[in-house]
Amino acid sequence: MVGGGRGAFIGQVHRMAANLDGKIELVAGAFSSCPEKSKLSGEDFFIDSERAYPSYEEMAKAEAAREDGIDFVSIVVQNHLHFRVAKCFLEAGIHVICDKPLALDMNEAKELQKLVHESGLVFALTHNYTGYPMVKEAKRMVAEGELGRLLKVVAEYPQGYAIGDVEGNGDGAISNWRADPKIAGMSNCIGDIGTHAHHLAHYITGLEVEELAAELTAFIPGRELDDDGNCLIRFENGVKGIIYASQISNGDENNLNIRIYGTKASIEWHQEDPNELLVKFPSAPRQIYRRGNDYLGKLAQANTRTPFAHPEGFIEAFANVYLAAAAAISDKIDGKPAPEEAYDYPTVDDGVKGMAFIKACVESSKNNAAWTQLDL
Amino acid sequence: MVGGGRGAFIGQVHRMAANLDGKIELVAGAFSSCPEKSKLSGEDFFIDSERAYPSYEEMAKAEAAREDGIDFVSIVVQNHLHFRVAKCFLEAGIHVICDKPLALDMNEAKELQKLVHESGLVFALTHNYTGYPMVKEAKRMVAEGELGRLLKVVAEYPQGYAIGDVEGNGDGAISNWRADPKIAGMSNCIGDIGTHAHHLAHYITGLEVEELAAELTAFIPGRELDDDGNCLIRFENGVKGIIYASQISNGDENNLNIRIYGTKASIEWHQEDPNELLVKFPSAPRQIYRRGNDYLGKLAQANTRTPFAHPEGFIEAFANVYLAAAAAISDKIDGKPAPEEAYDYPTVDDGVKGMAFIKACVESSKNNAAWTQLDL
Amino acid sequence: MVGGGRGAFIGQVHRMAANLDGKIELVAGAFSSCPEKSKLSGEDFFIDSERAYPSYEEMAKAEAAREDGIDFVSIVVQNHLHFRVAKCFLEAGIHVICDKPLALDMNEAKELQKLVHESGLVFALTHNYTGYPMVKEAKRMVAEGELGRLLKVVAEYPQGYAIGDVEGNGDGAISNWRADPKIAGMSNCIGDIGTHAHHLAHYITGLEVEELAAELTAFIPGRELDDDGNCLIRFENGVKGIIYASQISNGDENNLNIRIYGTKASIEWHQEDPNELLVKFPSAPRQIYRRGNDYLGKLAQANTRTPFAHPEGFIEAFANVYLAAAAAISDKIDGKPAPEEAYDYPTVDDGVKGMAFIKACVESSKNNAAWTQLDL
Amino acid sequence: MVGGGRGAFIGQVHRMAANLDGKIELVAGAFSSCPEKSKLSGEDFFIDSERAYPSYEEMAKAEAAREDGIDFVSIVVQNHLHFRVAKCFLEAGIHVICDKPLALDMNEAKELQKLVHESGLVFALTHNYTGYPMVKEAKRMVAEGELGRLLKVVAEYPQGYAIGDVEGNGDGAISNWRADPKIAGMSNCIGDIGTHAHHLAHYITGLEVEELAAELTAFIPGRELDDDGNCLIRFENGVKGIIYASQISNGDENNLNIRIYGTKASIEWHQEDPNELLVKFPSAPRQIYRRGNDYLGKLAQANTRTPFAHPEGFIEAFANVYLAAAAAISDKIDGKPAPEEAYDYPTVDDGVKGMAFIKACVESSKNNAAWTQLDL
Repeated sequence: MVGGGRGAFIGQVHRMAANLDGKIELVAGAFSSCPEKSKLSGEDFFIDSERAYPSYEEMAKAEAAREDGIDFVSIVVQNHLHFRVAKCFLEAGIHVICDKPLALDMNEAKELQKLVHESGLVFALTHNYTGYPMVKEAKRMVAEGELGRLLKVVAEYPQGYAIGDVEGNGDGAISNWRADPKIAGMSNCIGDIGTHAHHLAHYITGLEVEELAAELTAFIPGRELDDDGNCLIRFENGVKGIIYASQISNGDENNLNIRIYGTKASIEWHQEDPNELLVKFPSAPRQIYRRGNDYLGKLAQANTRTPFAHPEGFIEAFANVYLAAAAAISDKIDGKPAPEEAYDYPTVDDGVKGMAFIKACVESSKNNAAWTQLDL
Repeated sequence: MVGGGRGAFIGQVHRMAANLDGKIELVAGAFSSCPEKSKLSGEDFFIDSERAYPSYEEMAKAEAAREDGIDFVSIVVQNHLHFRVAKCFLEAGIHVICDKPLALDMNEAKELQKLVHESGLVFALTHNYTGYPMVKEAKRMVAEGELGRLLKVVAEYPQGYAIGDVEGNGDGAISNWRADPKIAGMSNCIGDIGTHAHHLAHYITGLEVEELAAELTAFIPGRELDDDGNCLIRFENGVKGIIYASQISNGDENNLNIRIYGTKASIEWHQEDPNELLVKFPSAPRQIYRRGNDYLGKLAQANTRTPFAHPEGFIEAFANVYLAAAAAISDKIDGKPAPEEAYDYPTVDDGVKGMAFIKACVESSKNNAAWTQLDL
Repeated sequence: MVGGGRGAFIGQVHRMAANLDGKIELVAGAFSSCPEKSKLSGEDFFIDSERAYPSYEEMAKAEAAREDGIDFVSIVVQNHLHFRVAKCFLEAGIHVICDKPLALDMNEAKELQKLVHESGLVFALTHNYTGYPMVKEAKRMVAEGELGRLLKVVAEYPQGYAIGDVEGNGDGAISNWRADPKIAGMSNCIGDIGTHAHHLAHYITGLEVEELAAELTAFIPGRELDDDGNCLIRFENGVKGIIYASQISNGDENNLNIRIYGTKASIEWHQEDPNELLVKFPSAPRQIYRRGNDYLGKLAQANTRTPFAHPEGFIEAFANVYLAAAAAISDKIDGKPAPEEAYDYPTVDDGVKGMAFIKACVESSKNNAAWTQLDL
Repeated sequence: MVGGGRGAFIGQVHRMAANLDGKIELVAGAFSSCPEKSKLSGEDFFIDSERAYPSYEEMAKAEAAREDGIDFVSIVVQNHLHFRVAKCFLEAGIHVICDKPLALDMNEAKELQKLVHESGLVFALTHNYTGYPMVKEAKRMVAEGELGRLLKVVAEYPQGYAIGDVEGNGDGAISNWRADPKIAGMSNCIGDIGTHAHHLAHYITGLEVEELAAELTAFIPGRELDDDGNCLIRFENGVKGIIYASQISNGDENNLNIRIYGTKASIEWHQEDPNELLVKFPSAPRQIYRRGNDYLGKLAQANTRTPFAHPEGFIEAFANVYLAAAAAISDKIDGKPAPEEAYDYPTVDDGVKGMAFIKACVESSKNNAAWTQLDL
């Protein structure tokens, strides 16, 4: 693991996700850019002291050289470091699981994409929300035509945690690196959570965004980056949509929702109530699909750990990304061929699509919400 | 009543709303453009046969002349007739309660507005959804600053009833006058239900829409008018928003929802669950305000007929528009001055704003979702 | 109408229910035991002054004698008067719609039952909660075997409004006639609302309660009658159940719920969310049946006034009892035979069953929750 | 670990719960009574082959003797073995985490209780549902008097999974050891899930059940043990209640719910929606407390792993029992004194109370639901 030392939130989530199934062991890390802190964090995680490295470069080098070196690295550093850390491990021949967004801009993103494709290494991006079983069921329903031809997609992701200092008398709650373009990249809200909504819509429907009209806003005085963004979307095949994200939607917590409308039926899923999937028909009772039941598709069942109504949550979904990536990595290591069905984890290509989405949103917004095509 | 003969849906709703409180009596009508049908409908409604008129013109004339003539008329005809029927009764000096939208275009709308203002007559438009008590409580909360400064408004109104013949092999479910520009006007979906979402947002927040970027779509082959519309909104005071409406959102029934975000708190209301109002705070438990409780404001309490958790619904909200308009009419007739607080019903001015909203949506959409100001 | 003068709650509900459909007109009343108040109330309701009677006895006599006398009387007085007022009008040959409970004890109840059966008059009891369309749909599903053989019924009715003076330092919120055995009868909570839960269970399932074990409690110091009651139930055919009711369940408003479990499926309905019916299966997605849809049975559709998701509520359900009773009365007056299907309103026989339920609860509780059979 | 070999459900849950936080390592086990299966399971779990024991007796002996022996054992065998396995490890001086119910009868239960108290060893029982953060918040609210004096408790636990062969033509879905008195003990439904409801009520309120009147039923032909049970409860201090559990409630999945009513407020929690706690007041808006917020009490916050609205579920709650027991075990091993506040895990004393509850239910039911005191 690179990053994720004492007190870091997302590093801890990655560790729990990796621990859960008892199949992945944390054995090495460069947990902090401060060597001392990295070492102490290593102790917290019961790592051999020689494998708590002072820097990611040393870690990549040393682990690549060990016979019992790591099978893959988890990258949980801040956005602006994703590119160089990932590059370093890929060049050392080590598989990667990386936090999103993929990189700071399209150049970095495409260079990583090239590296991954050329190396044949596994690269998984932790768009964790598509790890939920009922999201996988939604994908199956669309794929098998149960919704008919798709017409409209509405994906929304309001949060309120960054409401901060709304009157501009000082700094806001989000006085961290996410508001700093040098670290977070060209967008805060769309980059941080808008991309989750975009990936969710793409994962379930398989549709690419062709062009979009976006209005990004920095509501809190003094912010350089957006804390709110609303987009009209034109997907391929004439499908229309709305994607919006917000971090100033007071009192909303992690309110990622999606509705997908087809000619035969529509579906609705709420991240805050992830064990259910609502299916609506033009003239029949609504149906509630519930996680853990044997009437669900293979993919939803395979990503389930507890029986129905023994609720699963965020960590389990995150762990599903880890399990799928680990399966791919394990097959590579064992020299097994990939199965006929694709491995079910977000790839470097999904990361490139995410970057293209962010870039289009930022450009459109600068042009007064002019329609802007995605650079795919 | 003009319109609303046997079998007409909205006429029956108006009658139930008027009946409910036992204070309004239906005594005359021109229920159909077919004189025979008008007469038979009059019998259904226990009207004296001489007051079941063959035409609205005769009705206006005769009732204006009677000593015991009607106190006001309810106009429940198709959109394209609103203007001429309303004009006729206003010119006869009779107060009007009229179904929305106000008229077919801005010219008609502004002429009615002028007539109403000059005559001093009461003109109420049945934007019934703002008749719900919890909507009135929402308005109070905004007005009293409980949400702080407003930042964002999201109003959505998906329905699926007009999904119709999605593959274009014939005509769709909405093969009625709503799809005909000569009768419905320049828009179907935005005109019919988008205006309800717009009025709801305006009623609660008091904010005017300054400009909007809209994409209207006719998903069903052969339709001249939109059956879906998505709008980015710029309200006054820098408030941003989204308003969308749809009639091809399969399985959605009458899913009008609104979320209003302020610097201190946010609120959320769902028309399909109208007796509750959800209030969310940045760092305190969420609150559910429930109709019928004595902790609610005066306006919500005054528009309530049953104790808490004896649910009220659509007809009661509709009846609240009638009650408020009837109070204004009654005061006019009795020569009483208007109370200090405004009467609480949608006015001809709201109707003009609605027309401006429809017009801007249609124009923006024709210009590839260019920002378009409202003609107010 | 007898009772229901100015300020009375349930009288106003009866009037709104009767008004709603424009088919019933209030033309006479003895609105109060105080003649002056009765007269003033008559003015409120636009009644001819000669038909605002000083007493119910005079009203029954005068109206029976008029050619244009009332078609039926609505009785909305306090419990202890139900018997004598109903008896008076029945003996005058006038049909009756009466508030529940039927009477103060089994003797009164059975005397009324005899009178009704011998006279052939219509007698409807306003167990309004079975007027909801989705309750009627539930009844249909059971009747048509969609649940399979029934196994278990759980009906609960917690309210909190009578929490009152819980520490006994004075009188409680329920310091009214409901706490007075001479007026309310042998039970407060079970009599007032437990009977609604009992009737609801009986209406949907058709099952009789054979015996029950009940524990009634008066939590508030100084109360003579129960404000809470819990019952184990043995229905016929080996069906088991729980019925409980409470008026000291703080914060609950009108939380009447029922779950019915069969061998094939189960259903669940919540009065506070009356437009939906949840259907659960052993190994299939749950289904939500929603009012106003054409996939519902005939009875649910016939008791519906607005399209789907234009919510209906308490008054509409109440009005359905009025409509059904009015249909029966109208047929009697017109000399029409009863239709093959029974009229769908609660009868005097249901009232007798309710009295038997109350009596068994009170007796069982006095005997330390011993099993007690119903006196049917 | 004893039990929990390949394919066993609850063993896998225990392992995930132990894995989650990266602080507990599975190093030894007797995973099956079949030595070969135990060995193979050991390989699945990456255990040294010498520590995959053929029997629990050998495991206890060998691990007690090793310097690096296990710190504690997890017992996940069938009910009838709990006693002897737990006894064996306690006598070997090894701490125990044991699945519920504690034992087969009161004799076994009390012998274990004595052993634990005399040895000073940690003994934790995995009543996992009280591991949920919002249950801990509920406990805090009661303890700090926010509900006032308690009046009533309703705990319900319907499941439908054992509906099985309802018509008696063969065996039911529950054709496993749970239906066999020799393995499951004197009760199936009350023993398996009724005790969870009982423990939940006790954990939150601190109240003991004084006596109860229970009706247990075996709905499915041929079953010796109950598959449904309904109890009237008399808690101490005059608090009244209902506890019921069912495994034939078709379509219900794991529907454990509790409502607790006090003189000032009431609370309501649903296991299937565990991240929220509903708080209701007599005359104020309802409040929704949500997991992960800083307005919650210390205990709820300490048992939380992800931020608000990143849902936690069943495994996390289970892991909280492990964490609390592990803290106690770790303190014992390190010779640290117990903290002032009690460790927050279900103890052997809770297990004894559970056995007393089961025994009273069975006895009462045999006596036609006569009131039966708990043998505490």
